[in-house]
Amino acid sequence: MTRAERLAKVVAEHELDMLYVSDLVNVRYLAGFTGTNGACLVGRDERIFFTDFRYTERAQREVGAEWERPEAERELVPQIAGRMHGRVGFEDAKLPVRGLTRLEAAAGDDVELIPAGELVEGLRAVKDPEEIERIAAAAQLTDEVYRWAIEAGLAGKTERAVARASEAKIRELGAEPSFPPIVAGAANGALPHAEPEEREIGSGELVVFDMGALLDGYCSDCTRTFATGDVDDEAREVYELVERSQAAALEAVRPEASGQEVDAVPREIISEAGHGDHFGHGTGHGVGLEVHEGPRLATTSDDQLAEGNVVTVEPGVYLPGRLGVRIEDLVVVIADGYRNLSGLPKSLTTVG
Amino acid sequence: MTRAERLAKVVAEHELDMLYVSDLVNVRYLAGFTGTNGACLVGRDERIFFTDFRYTERAQREVGAEWERPEAERELVPQIAGRMHGRVGFEDAKLPVRGLTRLEAAAGDDVELIPAGELVEGLRAVKDPEEIERIAAAAQLTDEVYRWAIEAGLAGKTERAVARASEAKIRELGAEPSFPPIVAGAANGALPHAEPEEREIGSGELVVFDMGALLDGYCSDCTRTFATGDVDDEAREVYELVERSQAAALEAVRPEASGQEVDAVPREIISEAGHGDHFGHGTGHGVGLEVHEGPRLATTSDDQLAEGNVVTVEPGVYLPGRLGVRIEDLVVVIADGYRNLSGLPKSLTTVG
Repeated sequence: MTRAERLAKVVAEHELDMLYVSDLVNVRYLAGFTGTNGACLVGRDERIFFTDFRYTERAQREVGAEWERPEAERELVPQIAGRMHGRVGFEDAKLPVRGLTRLEAAAGDDVELIPAGELVEGLRAVKDPEEIERIAAAAQLTDEVYRWAIEAGLAGKTERAVARASEAKIRELGAEPSFPPIVAGAANGALPHAEPEEREIGSGELVVFDMGALLDGYCSDCTRTFATGDVDDEAREVYELVERSQAAALEAVRPEASGQEVDAVPREIISEAGHGDHFGHGTGHGVGLEVHEGPRLATTSDDQLAEGNVVTVEPGVYLPGRLGVRIEDLVVVIADGYRNLSGLPKSLTTVG
Repeated sequence: MTRAERLAKVVAEHELDMLYVSDLVNVRYLAGFTGTNGACLVGRDERIFFTDFRYTERAQREVGAEWERPEAERELVPQIAGRMHGRVGFEDAKLPVRGLTRLEAAAGDDVELIPAGELVEGLRAVKDPEEIERIAAAAQLTDEVYRWAIEAGLAGKTERAVARASEAKIRELGAEPSFPPIVAGAANGALPHAEPEEREIGSGELVVFDMGALLDGYCSDCTRTFATGDVDDEAREVYELVERSQAAALEAVRPEASGQEVDAVPREIISEAGHGDHFGHGTGHGVGLEVHEGPRLATTSDDQLAEGNVVTVEPGVYLPGRLGVRIEDLVVVIADGYRNLSGLPKSLTTVG
């Protein structure tokens, strides 16, 4: 079954006649289109792709024969509205209010527009083998950049210089960063979403290093925390706690485990060690065409894992003003548990 | 007057009690915040900035004293809704339908939510001197990359290699590309939104080269079309036509000229030469925090130029299957016309 065929089934299950897909990542997932103006209508019998004249040629190249491609006009809305009928779902988490208003004005009286949530995102959460291999390739490339960075050393360089050099290395290897790398040593490691600073990394620090690559359209995401020389007992204890909690979390990953269940495993270990308040984020998230997608491993997650999900497993402990530790692997959910796409060691590695 | 004060005046003129600003670029413009989750409420007496706990410290550093910063919670909507009263405008071109639905559910009965268009974008279109100097710096950096690329030569390299090397050079000079550079020779130059290909640039081609830098938060945008050795008469004639039409368009730039009026000047010259159908885009667009913003110079523009606008002037002629020519400067609208921020020559330059 093609992706569009699977979506058509989901659309019918939701008692919709069609889904209007306006989110460009979803359009890309369904129809393969990589331009910046495109949309799809998917119903039982409809596979319609819309773009404007600037992208006619690209669409011809990228969008499969399964799709009808009506003659392109600059303004897509009237064209799209003209093909709608019945109960039409739309992507309410993404579609701007004005987009809906314009559709409503252009659509016929027989059209009922219904907020439909994230149906395509639901499909995207389960990767096919080709997608998994692309993500694995992005993860391997990231591992290579980590090995290069370990070799090059951290102490004596600024956080920003390490981050910039890593981005350059990712590009040299033929990919793009999937997000701006985080390089955060000592107390900076305790800041959520730290931006690399013009601060020289000293020796005897813990350095949180979080990066990923975007290769062939798919993302990877990996974090390691390195020591620059000997670290004190507190740092070592926190590291070992996070390492242990991360290993336990991995063992909880399997089909049908809930996102809450997996999240609870490292959280309990960290809480028992008295650091419950120092783990202020979820345990993981899906990764694919976007670096943050479903399913979520978090206290507030409603998701349940399934074979083919690709998720991060990344507990952390952050002591404000002192240090941070996060260890993150990227794994595929397989029948009997997980396959780890991150190949780097996780015991505390000392880097020059 | 601060930006927020100017916005408060516009809000009052639109008979609104407050504006809910959710677009992150607009939030950055108003409050200086660069994180990925933030919003503002601006009314006659209110300057309220919201973010979540991950960004508390960044907000403290970036957001000025003019702004009230309520204690951060993860979920901003209830907090924001709780501070709304009366007629509250929202950014309907950007706010997702679900965002509005959640606000409606959380806001009190005395709140009326009203689509308010792009009020902050209206302010952003008129740059202050500091913004103009940042854009000028980004434009100068881009000129430097062009000079380097001319020196390095085009013929014998692939389009993609030239584009990648230019991106690397932009980064080496301390900026980021403001969009992926376009390098499109011969018939590729006629494709709208051509992506650089693995095609070797030959000699005797016209090469459309469009790039810009993002420096200190502000963008630049510049296009030149180069010749790699001698080109035929058709190429030379089209080049001279575009050069002439671009010079005429520049002379039409002045305060109070309408976007349609400026657009019509090169369009008429190009049409008279029989190429009206080969100029399929607008003459220009505003540039600032984003590389495409207001005002627009186009047949469908409702904008009127004002002192402090920064716009591109970029007519082009594209002969399908044969060649393309576009020449683009970035200019500031000043009292008696324009100031050109692009410093590169525009007569046909032959590059090795």
